[in-house]
Amino acid sequence: MPEFLELLPPAAALEKMFASLPQAILSTEKIDTIFALGRVINDPVLAHEPLPAFARSTVDGYALRAADTYGATEALPAYLPLAGEVPMGAAPAFALPPGTAASIHTGGMLPQGADAVLMMEYTQESRPGELEVLRAVGAGENILKAGEDVVVGQEVLPAGARLRPAEIGGLMALGLTEVEVVRQPRVGIISSGDEVVPPNQAAQPGQVRDINSYSLSALVTQAGAEPVRYGIVGDQAAALEAALQSALAECDLVVVTAGSSASTRDLTAAIVNRMGQPGVLVHGVNVKPGKPTILAVCDGKAVIGLPGNPVSALVIARIFLIPVIEKLSGLTVGGARRSAQARLTVNLASQAGREDYIPVRLISTADGLAADPIFYKSNLIFMLARADGLVRIPADATGLGAGMIVEVEYL
Amino acid sequence: MPEFLELLPPAAALEKMFASLPQAILSTEKIDTIFALGRVINDPVLAHEPLPAFARSTVDGYALRAADTYGATEALPAYLPLAGEVPMGAAPAFALPPGTAASIHTGGMLPQGADAVLMMEYTQESRPGELEVLRAVGAGENILKAGEDVVVGQEVLPAGARLRPAEIGGLMALGLTEVEVVRQPRVGIISSGDEVVPPNQAAQPGQVRDINSYSLSALVTQAGAEPVRYGIVGDQAAALEAALQSALAECDLVVVTAGSSASTRDLTAAIVNRMGQPGVLVHGVNVKPGKPTILAVCDGKAVIGLPGNPVSALVIARIFLIPVIEKLSGLTVGGARRSAQARLTVNLASQAGREDYIPVRLISTADGLAADPIFYKSNLIFMLARADGLVRIPADATGLGAGMIVEVEYL
Repeated sequence: MPEFLELLPPAAALEKMFASLPQAILSTEKIDTIFALGRVINDPVLAHEPLPAFARSTVDGYALRAADTYGATEALPAYLPLAGEVPMGAAPAFALPPGTAASIHTGGMLPQGADAVLMMEYTQESRPGELEVLRAVGAGENILKAGEDVVVGQEVLPAGARLRPAEIGGLMALGLTEVEVVRQPRVGIISSGDEVVPPNQAAQPGQVRDINSYSLSALVTQAGAEPVRYGIVGDQAAALEAALQSALAECDLVVVTAGSSASTRDLTAAIVNRMGQPGVLVHGVNVKPGKPTILAVCDGKAVIGLPGNPVSALVIARIFLIPVIEKLSGLTVGGARRSAQARLTVNLASQAGREDYIPVRLISTADGLAADPIFYKSNLIFMLARADGLVRIPADATGLGAGMIVEVEYL
Repeated sequence: MPEFLELLPPAAALEKMFASLPQAILSTEKIDTIFALGRVINDPVLAHEPLPAFARSTVDGYALRAADTYGATEALPAYLPLAGEVPMGAAPAFALPPGTAASIHTGGMLPQGADAVLMMEYTQESRPGELEVLRAVGAGENILKAGEDVVVGQEVLPAGARLRPAEIGGLMALGLTEVEVVRQPRVGIISSGDEVVPPNQAAQPGQVRDINSYSLSALVTQAGAEPVRYGIVGDQAAALEAALQSALAECDLVVVTAGSSASTRDLTAAIVNRMGQPGVLVHGVNVKPGKPTILAVCDGKAVIGLPGNPVSALVIARIFLIPVIEKLSGLTVGGARRSAQARLTVNLASQAGREDYIPVRLISTADGLAADPIFYKSNLIFMLARADGLVRIPADATGLGAGMIVEVEYL
């Protein structure tokens, strides 16, 4: 296995693949904003209207001229005749004459002439049609001027942002019921291995059911892309080559989970290498689990060869597949990994020079979060199902000690 | 506003609502496992098959009897005739005669008679049909016995777990291509306020576009439930009552965003109180933003009155709406809030006795994550769009100091 002699660290391996990928992101499409949750915008959103669109009261009370309240106290109130009530949802039908006040609700539009709102709590309506002012207010108090939050032309959402509930709401605030978003990357998924059978089949002795096609599909969906499954191919060159050709023609990137043995992984690398230029860039990464990872670019499209082991495949997909999806989507804001700090419950050994990822369960303690590693003899998929996150042991560490605060990336 | 005189803290308010909600969760339905991402299982999943189903090799090498390698070294190798090759994906057609070895790949099924696998690295095929053994192995080495990971009847997924990619994969490993999941809660969403117009309309002076229906729909979708929008109702009792009746009949819980003023909030509370027993349980919570929150249970269904302000509505929905969705779904595993610890960049003032939620942006620094609060004059929705998370200032604090490590809940 000469390819394994010099193993790149994960970050360098990813960089090497990115250097051969086109800079361009996928094309965009216009969709209804209500269906845009999780999608990414390529162009910044600029406000074409000011927010608020008109001067508004931020409290329940009385719109007035601040000057008319000058010196008013509970002991020596000012008295202002009431000029009317501001309706909700419409412009006041009147301008406020000097020396008068108008009742107004939170969010109501300030009548012309008013420059402040006095909170209801500091008033009394002692006589019908007359307001007793128990406190002075300054000009501008309890109001929002038109455009005070957002002026016309202001960038309200940056390019490359993923749309979350607040962004969806913000687009609606501006009346943008349609939004131009980047097309969802199509991710071709191929499972390979003579021993792999579809999950709806009884596994005969020597056979195992296909896990990777489905766990990776779910991960791709979570990442905001569209999985396209190409099924299971045996360890025959022709079958794998045909599946790769279809997937590369129809998808924006392709993942292949290789069979378990070194020979089938080498076969996978050799075939991927024939699928386009520059071909295989990385074969073997200095990471556990996931050493036999293959990274390739074939005529502008990324091809990622994942280990056949389902735990390794999911962990490695997080490290190499998700970043490609994010790159194709133009995601630059809100794509950061989510992680927590937690106290390690036991010692974790690691080989210096290699990056390790250990599944952990997060436990709430009086002392903050604890990270409890999960150990199985094999890399069973249910090991990840019990985990809340992954602890990364950096390459320069020979392990992590019990009681240390570690970074846990949420699964 | 007599209801505001005694404000409950958020946790006590939630508890009060939960105490009046039925204990039962929603009914379940059987769906294809490939479509079950994010869904919740009500019953634990027990293995009906062992994993692995047969004894497997965990390396590439040679299946043999450990006793036959006893004493073998590079200086004094043992020699074993080759009895065959184990095919991938099928049971070996032969039993291994004593004193022989058979080549086997990672994941291959151990032939009868073998009790260990010697890694390829410690062998040579010096003469055709004969294996040179350069190292001894112990019995059980480099193999996984049948059922070593999972025995029949073992619980592999607990009740109340949300299905993530690893859980989807685990179900497939067991051949469970269909899974019984809890029905998605239907969440009715009503926006109220005379000033609110649909987002596809030009807002006239005094009007604002409906944000809450859409930001809350997106939040509900994110939480794994199904939003049902009942549109905008004005501040007329009859309209709100009719909308609430429809929503309560058709949905599992209902949220109403009240108009902005105290009078419309009181109107909302009065009408919600008429919709069923026991009615309004909480009117006013000691939290900022979100003081005017209404929590009610009407004939077994939760009704949550959210503040009309879009930022308050989203923050409060995270505190009160998401827990109800999780309760209805039976979610007990994997529903924990995701949060990070970060260093606060500035002082944050707060009123003692009140819980505060402050939007922050997370910034990566050499010193770890920094939490930088976002301030706007008003509670503009774009404030949350700029934020990565929320910092909670506990009720017993009068503020948080710059440089303090704070808990940031991811948005």
